[in-house]
Amino acid sequence: MDIEIIIIGDEISLGIKTDTNGPYLSHILNKLGIKVRWRTIVGDESEALVEALRTANERSQLIITTGGLGPTHDDITRKALSRAFNQQLILQEEVLQNIKDRFKKYNKIMPQSNTVQALVPKNAKIWKNEMGTAPGLCSKLADNKYYIALPGVPNELKYFSEQYLIPFIQTLNPTGKHYISRTLHTIGTSESALAELVSPIINKEKILNISFLASIFGIDITFYGYFINETKGKKELDRLEKELKGKLDDLLYGIDEENLEYAIGRLLQVHNKRLAIAESCTGGLIGHRITNIAGSSEYFERGIIAYSNQSKIDLLNVSPLILERYGAVSEQTAKAMAKGVRYLSEVDIGLSITGIAGPSGGTKEKPIGLVYIAISTHNDCEVKKFNLTGDRKTIKQKASQFALNYLRLYLMEKG
Amino acid sequence: MDIEIIIIGDEISLGIKTDTNGPYLSHILNKLGIKVRWRTIVGDESEALVEALRTANERSQLIITTGGLGPTHDDITRKALSRAFNQQLILQEEVLQNIKDRFKKYNKIMPQSNTVQALVPKNAKIWKNEMGTAPGLCSKLADNKYYIALPGVPNELKYFSEQYLIPFIQTLNPTGKHYISRTLHTIGTSESALAELVSPIINKEKILNISFLASIFGIDITFYGYFINETKGKKELDRLEKELKGKLDDLLYGIDEENLEYAIGRLLQVHNKRLAIAESCTGGLIGHRITNIAGSSEYFERGIIAYSNQSKIDLLNVSPLILERYGAVSEQTAKAMAKGVRYLSEVDIGLSITGIAGPSGGTKEKPIGLVYIAISTHNDCEVKKFNLTGDRKTIKQKASQFALNYLRLYLMEKG
Repeated sequence: MDIEIIIIGDEISLGIKTDTNGPYLSHILNKLGIKVRWRTIVGDESEALVEALRTANERSQLIITTGGLGPTHDDITRKALSRAFNQQLILQEEVLQNIKDRFKKYNKIMPQSNTVQALVPKNAKIWKNEMGTAPGLCSKLADNKYYIALPGVPNELKYFSEQYLIPFIQTLNPTGKHYISRTLHTIGTSESALAELVSPIINKEKILNISFLASIFGIDITFYGYFINETKGKKELDRLEKELKGKLDDLLYGIDEENLEYAIGRLLQVHNKRLAIAESCTGGLIGHRITNIAGSSEYFERGIIAYSNQSKIDLLNVSPLILERYGAVSEQTAKAMAKGVRYLSEVDIGLSITGIAGPSGGTKEKPIGLVYIAISTHNDCEVKKFNLTGDRKTIKQKASQFALNYLRLYLMEKG
Repeated sequence: MDIEIIIIGDEISLGIKTDTNGPYLSHILNKLGIKVRWRTIVGDESEALVEALRTANERSQLIITTGGLGPTHDDITRKALSRAFNQQLILQEEVLQNIKDRFKKYNKIMPQSNTVQALVPKNAKIWKNEMGTAPGLCSKLADNKYYIALPGVPNELKYFSEQYLIPFIQTLNPTGKHYISRTLHTIGTSESALAELVSPIINKEKILNISFLASIFGIDITFYGYFINETKGKKELDRLEKELKGKLDDLLYGIDEENLEYAIGRLLQVHNKRLAIAESCTGGLIGHRITNIAGSSEYFERGIIAYSNQSKIDLLNVSPLILERYGAVSEQTAKAMAKGVRYLSEVDIGLSITGIAGPSGGTKEKPIGLVYIAISTHNDCEVKKFNLTGDRKTIKQKASQFALNYLRLYLMEKG
């Protein structure tokens, strides 16, 4: 069954707001085993919406719209449905009464403007709204096709989806299939190198779909399929995960919800190690990410945001001579920061970072994006140099990702 | 000119990821005075994409696609363009050389799989990619129509938009109208109370469109319009801004790109004050936000992420007796932290925060979401109590927002 979603609203089409209703509906339909083929976004503009509805009717069996059912002038969905599908609008007394009752419940009188919400296409079945004033509409078209019009307010859409949409689709339900997916998160190589590494597995894969997604946090590999037997589907996911893991080795840092901060938390717990950090250029971001993990207080002792030179001297015992001779952004300072924070916090591992996030402060020798990351333990002290690109915020995000990954690889190797 | 955007990728169509490229492009085109009429989202599925491209070609003058230009098997855009518009794919040596050069720059050899990225429709003009391997494609179709295919990686899309897309559209420039908008950011009241406060202004507004958007960071009021004369349009924005400001008073903290961390940065500079912070439950988030602002090193001296009790004693001089008697999450501890960080850093203002972010650690007396925020100066020390709701990450975000807003109001009142 081909399904098309149409999201209606200027705030979405103008790019003022990010659409969350489309992903929500896709997700729900996925779970019912149905892949949405097209999602179309249109503004509060009648011509464009009528055209979108007609196109959808040509290529899809079921059209679901969200938005444009409110009481104000920019709510155009009712009229557009009427025009696109030649369905007369009539005033439904029952709907009007529901709207009046709703206002009464809050001791208010219905403003005249809400009357238009009771104007509905003649053939449409009414889905009663318990969360707001706009009713949901469900109408059969020629050739066993349907449209469903739902409000765009997220909690109302959720209500209609659970109460009406899911049961309705289950009665049509064509497939009886379940969508299941898994995502492997990797870091440390390029998308093409990763694709080449796993290409023998991907080329022979016949059952699951596989896609790659690159971001500043690394490359994700997602695989998914639709299965009548969910348990059997999960076995397929397990099989492919195992095959990929064999190739990915330490490039893989997490599965599904597991991010890098989760991975290092687990490693610290496994090895029974406590961590303290000293951040300069990331300004607290690494601490923020580590403490996003519930229970991080068990292994995260403290963090120092040593932004000024004085704070590096006061709080991390960095020698003023080192700062003077090598500068705040140097191998030597990074090492002294890691040692200092470890020693003064009395923990097992000290992680430090110092760099130039920009937009100013770069020189020819020390350009914007230059970052040093150091790790200190009882036994040794290591430092790595990175040259990162991007604006200030991107450099901070990348630097935090490289720091956490450096720590992850260190813990995996040396425990 | 009718423009259609097509966003390509399973991660978007399946609802795994929210699309940010569509809003970004809409925003850019808005600024050029062009409203995008349709935005279509399709997965990595050839048939669906070809159908979307053909539909777009029927109803629009310019089609912009993002995504599906990578080197892996799920990158289907090149072939789909070739099929939809009957354009033969040929291997462009120049593109291939660019890709090889890019790998060379990083001392790597190009994996064979990247070769497909040099397979481009014969008629297409090549837009060179300085940020990645996939070239941008721009091709003229029949009837003076065009398509433009760009990569889906956000920083690459941004690069192409600034370098090629905007200049290209300016040469076509159709309307001569400019979209201009302004957003006022507020914090401290509910959406309906805010709407009621400004309703006299909004009800009589005839020229600009106005919308409200609520989030955990407060309520935004956006107003916009399309103007041939940009200067005249800006005057309208200025007029409405002034009217609204009269009602909003200190609820307003910023305009357009100005967030709370920017606002406090400006206030600290105006009053020539330096800041140090001590964070417990936010774990570095406040420091991260403050240091997102370029030039923050001028007023931000240091931060302490005092996660353990020991670190509060060591680094902030919090008395063990206070921790024992009142607990780490208490008025007394918050005040001691603020005083400690101010005194030890030798700055003008100390800001501290301590609370329970959850999901565990709450009690009947001290529930999850309980947060104390304190401000210490040479003259006095204030503390405020908050009861926040949400999951761990939401509580951290809200806590950081309330802390920065508390500091903003303090600086506005006491300087």
